[in-house]
Amino acid sequence: MEFESLKGFRDFYPGEMAARRRVWDTVHSVARSYGFQEVNAPSLESLELYEVKSGEEIVEETYSFEDKGGRDVTMTPELTPSLARMFVSRQQALAKPVKWYSIPKLWRYEQPQSGRLREFVQPNFDVYGVESAAADAEVVAFAHALLTELGLTDEFELRISHRGVVEGYVERYGLDEDDAADVYRAIDKSERLSDDELRGQLRANGLQPEEVDEIMELCSSGGAFTPEVLESAVDVDSERATEAVERLMETSKELERYDVLDSCRFDPSIVRGMDYYTGVVFECFDVEGSLRAIFGGGRYDSLVEEFGGQATPAVGFGMGDATLQQLLERSDEWPEESATLDYYVAVVGDVRDTAVNVARGLRREGFVVELDVTGRGFGDQLEHADRVGADNTVIVGERDLEQGEVTVKDMETGDQRQVPVEEFL
Amino acid sequence: MEFESLKGFRDFYPGEMAARRRVWDTVHSVARSYGFQEVNAPSLESLELYEVKSGEEIVEETYSFEDKGGRDVTMTPELTPSLARMFVSRQQALAKPVKWYSIPKLWRYEQPQSGRLREFVQPNFDVYGVESAAADAEVVAFAHALLTELGLTDEFELRISHRGVVEGYVERYGLDEDDAADVYRAIDKSERLSDDELRGQLRANGLQPEEVDEIMELCSSGGAFTPEVLESAVDVDSERATEAVERLMETSKELERYDVLDSCRFDPSIVRGMDYYTGVVFECFDVEGSLRAIFGGGRYDSLVEEFGGQATPAVGFGMGDATLQQLLERSDEWPEESATLDYYVAVVGDVRDTAVNVARGLRREGFVVELDVTGRGFGDQLEHADRVGADNTVIVGERDLEQGEVTVKDMETGDQRQVPVEEFL
Repeated sequence: MEFESLKGFRDFYPGEMAARRRVWDTVHSVARSYGFQEVNAPSLESLELYEVKSGEEIVEETYSFEDKGGRDVTMTPELTPSLARMFVSRQQALAKPVKWYSIPKLWRYEQPQSGRLREFVQPNFDVYGVESAAADAEVVAFAHALLTELGLTDEFELRISHRGVVEGYVERYGLDEDDAADVYRAIDKSERLSDDELRGQLRANGLQPEEVDEIMELCSSGGAFTPEVLESAVDVDSERATEAVERLMETSKELERYDVLDSCRFDPSIVRGMDYYTGVVFECFDVEGSLRAIFGGGRYDSLVEEFGGQATPAVGFGMGDATLQQLLERSDEWPEESATLDYYVAVVGDVRDTAVNVARGLRREGFVVELDVTGRGFGDQLEHADRVGADNTVIVGERDLEQGEVTVKDMETGDQRQVPVEEFL
Repeated sequence: MEFESLKGFRDFYPGEMAARRRVWDTVHSVARSYGFQEVNAPSLESLELYEVKSGEEIVEETYSFEDKGGRDVTMTPELTPSLARMFVSRQQALAKPVKWYSIPKLWRYEQPQSGRLREFVQPNFDVYGVESAAADAEVVAFAHALLTELGLTDEFELRISHRGVVEGYVERYGLDEDDAADVYRAIDKSERLSDDELRGQLRANGLQPEEVDEIMELCSSGGAFTPEVLESAVDVDSERATEAVERLMETSKELERYDVLDSCRFDPSIVRGMDYYTGVVFECFDVEGSLRAIFGGGRYDSLVEEFGGQATPAVGFGMGDATLQQLLERSDEWPEESATLDYYVAVVGDVRDTAVNVARGLRREGFVVELDVTGRGFGDQLEHADRVGADNTVIVGERDLEQGEVTVKDMETGDQRQVPVEEFL
């Protein structure tokens, strides 16, 4: 019988993996240059870790089960709870600010669709211990630098808001906590809802018609992420909303220093699904608007305390691999899907001693080398070298070796030249 | 409340992770230099994938559960079945030999103990499509190169045998399949059993006293992995065992070409627990003998066919991270557990515009840079820079900037010098 991978799970063969490795290498290097340090959390955690503060949705949509020891466990659906746990358990010893990143696999049990899979890779970046707008801005600027380094220029847009904007409006309506949470969730999904659907959901959660109008208007407002636009964003009497806008104005000033304002947009409908966000929130979309969010994140200043730590401000974001790949492919910036092979070493006749040494010499120099281990004929070896895309073939043959030489064939041009074998040893 | 990670699972903080990243970087680069190409398989597979041919043990010791769609699934306890599945599904299109590697996390539900955890990382290396002793030898030589590149010299020993040696003996005893399998498992564990325990287990599986003696003698024989030692290894009338020894003699000849014979030892008690091995088998141990196997593998020529593919020879091995780390630490070859920080950019006064630009300039050059986002006092900033191990601090201050300069402080020597700010922009 033949087996298949599970639905929503992907097999990565060498070409695809070579491209992905190039992308992850860039993520590592840009993250490091911004002072993020790599950490790694388990892929399985106690279920209760997600019952603290994740959206209900996320707990329902996980791979959760009882392990053989009777523990309720969950395959990590997001990284933030694990990182909060790790931060809390060494909180005293860590020099703040703590800047962590990780590139984990994560799992969610949901209907696979374009850009959304059951197993995915989600680079995560978090800063603990600073409450400043400068920290928010540096995280957003880092995200911008990352996409730029991956080759993107004007194909993406960072939509930024602050939870306080929408919350400032909604708290005036006197909803209970659950209804308010549902209202935020509806707004979070507004991108994918028609106006009528959004109105319907807002009404269903207890908003009056004029309140619905107010929220609909707020959601469709926004514009450039400049102090001027932000200043006129809130026209209701809400201290929370006013403070939120002031904070966003500070963030805008900081972001201008990083010269990234052109890619940013104020969008009050950005609230983020997770319940734990408390301040600035942001999502990155393709400008064409046909893909899911490239990444999303924000400030979560209560989470560490809710995980048993001392009150600690934090800000961060996670970036899913599937949508990122879609955008990079569409922008012709997805790396070439090919593995490199610098040298194929062909063995012709009873010369294995030398062939092995030629391969070892080249490998010591750091080259990518495949040595024939099949014992097949010379023609078949050359054909294989060509098929796997070798740049060069070193032909180790009995006759050449009598002259102390090997033949090096440039596989692209077909040029051959004799080279003293010592050069390879 | 405070949370903990699950037993047998590890949190990796920046220092530990920096060391691990260095180790994995070495694994990537040595694997590539030997022509292995990276692939990646899902971390969750259908349970049935492991029911084909893995040892019973491994199925019992997995994280298996029913997912929300009613499928029996397993968190991957080993990589070989996934790779066999992937190979089969593209068998026609792949140019043979196929040389794949991967560095996955794997999970087993077993009692955590020294060198054995419930979540671990296990680099895997496999070659499909070549049946030659040259292929066996190249895989063993690669393993040797990997340990050498990680800094080890004479701290390890490669113990090599061939399933046919022990099988040639045991098939003469007329055991049924289950008893024979149990005998192999007992021999596999012989390292950790006393002679009496081993004798007891062999007897319990149906061996007669003189047969037990024969196996005990075989297991304690062995020696240098040379044709001379191998030639005299088998003194019973068994075609299977004789052929196995002949193959090992070929392998020895090949390994001599790689100049690694000094690290190799013929050990007929090596059989490997997995049921799927069919030919050469090998394990790597520390010479002190106090650790578990550093890695283990061998030839499995029937597996691809059992997974629904065309008959395809294969050879490979997997290396657990925990024992590798123990050996590298004991040998003082575990990389330094520290993250690098090239520059800390301190902000003194109303100079954030310039400070951000200094940080961006340094980051563009590829340096690892932390920029102050806390707004704290100069003394606190310097203290932080020192605490996180910054090599240099660039002090961007109002007074210096009036002269168009910043101060660069070497954090080790304490030396300070004035540098034109343009040099950083």
